[in-house]
Amino acid sequence: MENRKDIPNQEEFWQMKAKSLEDDEYLTKDMEETSMLKRPVPLHLAQTTHANEFDCPLELQHKQQLFPHWRLPIKIAAVVSSLTFLYTLLREIIHPLVTSRQQYFYKIPILVINKVLPMVSITLLALVYLPGVIAAVVQLHNGTKYKKFPPWLDKWMLTRKQFGLLSFFFAVLHAIYSLSYPMRRSYRYKLLNWAFQQVQQNKEDAWIEHDVWRMEIYVSLGIVGLALLALLAVTSIPSVSDSLTWREFHYIQSNLGIVSLLLGTIHALIFAWNKWVDTKQFVWYTPPTFMIAVFLPIIVLIWKTILFLPCLRTKILRIRHGWEDVTKTNKIEMSSQL
Amino acid sequence: MENRKDIPNQEEFWQMKAKSLEDDEYLTKDMEETSMLKRPVPLHLAQTTHANEFDCPLELQHKQQLFPHWRLPIKIAAVVSSLTFLYTLLREIIHPLVTSRQQYFYKIPILVINKVLPMVSITLLALVYLPGVIAAVVQLHNGTKYKKFPPWLDKWMLTRKQFGLLSFFFAVLHAIYSLSYPMRRSYRYKLLNWAFQQVQQNKEDAWIEHDVWRMEIYVSLGIVGLALLALLAVTSIPSVSDSLTWREFHYIQSNLGIVSLLLGTIHALIFAWNKWVDTKQFVWYTPPTFMIAVFLPIIVLIWKTILFLPCLRTKILRIRHGWEDVTKTNKIEMSSQL
Amino acid sequence: MENRKDIPNQEEFWQMKAKSLEDDEYLTKDMEETSMLKRPVPLHLAQTTHANEFDCPLELQHKQQLFPHWRLPIKIAAVVSSLTFLYTLLREIIHPLVTSRQQYFYKIPILVINKVLPMVSITLLALVYLPGVIAAVVQLHNGTKYKKFPPWLDKWMLTRKQFGLLSFFFAVLHAIYSLSYPMRRSYRYKLLNWAFQQVQQNKEDAWIEHDVWRMEIYVSLGIVGLALLALLAVTSIPSVSDSLTWREFHYIQSNLGIVSLLLGTIHALIFAWNKWVDTKQFVWYTPPTFMIAVFLPIIVLIWKTILFLPCLRTKILRIRHGWEDVTKTNKIEMSSQL
Repeated sequence: MENRKDIPNQEEFWQMKAKSLEDDEYLTKDMEETSMLKRPVPLHLAQTTHANEFDCPLELQHKQQLFPHWRLPIKIAAVVSSLTFLYTLLREIIHPLVTSRQQYFYKIPILVINKVLPMVSITLLALVYLPGVIAAVVQLHNGTKYKKFPPWLDKWMLTRKQFGLLSFFFAVLHAIYSLSYPMRRSYRYKLLNWAFQQVQQNKEDAWIEHDVWRMEIYVSLGIVGLALLALLAVTSIPSVSDSLTWREFHYIQSNLGIVSLLLGTIHALIFAWNKWVDTKQFVWYTPPTFMIAVFLPIIVLIWKTILFLPCLRTKILRIRHGWEDVTKTNKIEMSSQL
Repeated sequence: MENRKDIPNQEEFWQMKAKSLEDDEYLTKDMEETSMLKRPVPLHLAQTTHANEFDCPLELQHKQQLFPHWRLPIKIAAVVSSLTFLYTLLREIIHPLVTSRQQYFYKIPILVINKVLPMVSITLLALVYLPGVIAAVVQLHNGTKYKKFPPWLDKWMLTRKQFGLLSFFFAVLHAIYSLSYPMRRSYRYKLLNWAFQQVQQNKEDAWIEHDVWRMEIYVSLGIVGLALLALLAVTSIPSVSDSLTWREFHYIQSNLGIVSLLLGTIHALIFAWNKWVDTKQFVWYTPPTFMIAVFLPIIVLIWKTILFLPCLRTKILRIRHGWEDVTKTNKIEMSSQL
Repeated sequence: MENRKDIPNQEEFWQMKAKSLEDDEYLTKDMEETSMLKRPVPLHLAQTTHANEFDCPLELQHKQQLFPHWRLPIKIAAVVSSLTFLYTLLREIIHPLVTSRQQYFYKIPILVINKVLPMVSITLLALVYLPGVIAAVVQLHNGTKYKKFPPWLDKWMLTRKQFGLLSFFFAVLHAIYSLSYPMRRSYRYKLLNWAFQQVQQNKEDAWIEHDVWRMEIYVSLGIVGLALLALLAVTSIPSVSDSLTWREFHYIQSNLGIVSLLLGTIHALIFAWNKWVDTKQFVWYTPPTFMIAVFLPIIVLIWKTILFLPCLRTKILRIRHGWEDVTKTNKIEMSSQL
């Protein structure tokens, strides 16, 4: 009967055996935590958008806050997007315009946007795993898990799911935009002109081996990374995650997530290829976006690997299973007494 | 009562506390409303298609109607599809065959179908928001929300969700078909021939600025519109919509939906670009499909904007929160008495 | 307590009315069957991966088995993948290297992988419907449905859903990989070289009618097949399948599934086109992958059609509704007595 206890709802089960106030309190606390997922909602309103859907009384409407868990991720996504957009605009449109009077405005709707999307996507994905790293470091430092996290970290922890889903959303957009490249007129005309030039130069073979390799690999890695993210996203559907055991869910969310972050980073690095040493990339001494994009993910990945070293790993696990580093915890108490 | 046992499960809850007839009635009423979502179903049958899945007694099978809420949307989709197909066939295949003996039958499997898909998709999406407009007008005219809607409008209202999901389905197909264009042999051979001609004509540059702009913009808009529709579709998954508050769900379903309809319409208009004045487009005096496609959406959007004007908006909201225009409601009563 | 009412769970319901051992046994059996979908899981752990997610006691972790229903499908997928990969590697990379010193290693990341994906996808999809065929044959032979299936068949039956979802996963990957072809540098360079050659040969028209037709059709069929699979996958989301009636679910799962298998097979056959008689395809006397791929699906489809013949169909249905072929069942009893 061990695992019986925590079946999706607990609640009724408790109710049935006339539960005490404490239970009730516990319950509401729990409801708080999972609010994104179990916020009360009248079925017949939420599930069929039917004739009377406007009957929800105004005061109720104003009581409810819109997407509380989504605000932070969306804000960050918005900021990163706009910064990257302006940055790319400067490098890809304004620079050629200023230096050599070339107009590349046509690049804005797709090419510029598709430099923003991957940037945002990988940043958000990194931000899913950064708080875990910070939490581990904090716990190691405190030597106990019973000391509260700072509120901002707690809040961040609770919105990781939203960070991940948003990251997936941007990744999918990035994929579709990329797949749409060759169907665009601009691509067709370029292709025709290249063909024309090749004939003019009477060049037998246009093949550039290393360039071919580069693209084959990063496209393939990108697709696989996206596929893993898709699995993550699917397991975030409430009724799907309900159907998983704790271990299954944890396995997918932590392992697959990190692997897809790793793939995404390699995807970006291989896209970069030899551009790191190519001075033409650094217009106005600014690095290309992909170099900035991989910065945060690489840090997260390095930290993850450090924390995975046996010595630290075991200590973290001990702490997370309730063990306390007496020396430190004492210090804490003392400091709190002072 | 056989299948009652394992319904996700309101019912039992009621049964437990030996509920009164009223409850029972309420329950059945509610079941009606949400039937697409809460129709009773034996869990172990529905969720793993397992060995005994054929044990469902015949009579039960015949009692249950297949997809009651999907019939109307699918019928309409089928009619619009076949009409658009024939219309496009006439314009794109038969016309050149008759006038200039050119065989373009190869266009049927992809190019013709991919003119049908967007047409159906945007029409269905417009039909999601049309009944809302009509309902508002009716309520404004009646001056109360307590007068019943005509049954056809009520039925339509209840199937909006299905209209929307079907529209999304066709939109996705449209996207995939479009993305598959450049990988087709037909496209490759055309490209090679264009290159050949360019060389023959010794044309330095194939670039057509306005054509490039047109495509960059409508592709980009199309992708964003599809992304919004995807969000709508995801929030229609029962367990996801359960996890949203009434306001959140309503916010997504009404606002995002209208925006994606708007984007879809602009997507079509920019695809049209300058073809409106291009007489070659009007073969046999028939307008191209995209002109017909945008007709309904534009009407819906105009109506939506009209109903959003402060004066009307406030009045509708007042009505929907229970206020009644006495002068009119009296009229109604009188007329009903006569 | 408004929202309490509508959460699923059988279990408590039984517990509440102080149920007897039989119930309990039934329950656990049922839990077994639907374990992928209803395995108990702590909501606040599973649904927001939050700060305390590591608190799950170790012993509990070790009790729970990871993805019991997914092991068989994933194993089979892994075996088929690696075999197909090696086989394709041999035919596409090693053969040209050995015979004509040509290096095609660049094909591995995308082209080779994208021969593996469809192979695995269609095989898994065939394996979804094979056990149903076998079960029918067994039931026909036994003349009753009350005789137990061999355990391996039972186990297979219970993992059909997972086979199907995995097949869909590979199908989607196959689609994305295929769509990415024209955006690859390798494709661009080939295109440019073809254009160059066409000019050299002063060839007016590169068009190859039958080749165009072939691709238009198989691409179109592939997309439609994928769309149907997507519908199947969506209806496998627990909360979605809950919202369907038994008939609706059964209708989609059995009919749509078989149709998509059929479409997939035709997709492969049309891809093959006239290559069956093209000796160049049989390098080192090995048949191309698509010939091997369609083998199993065709067998399944043939069997399905045979079992659909009126005479057999009616008998199977009679058996599945409880009718027993006395002559045979007696035999069975006797044999079991011996």
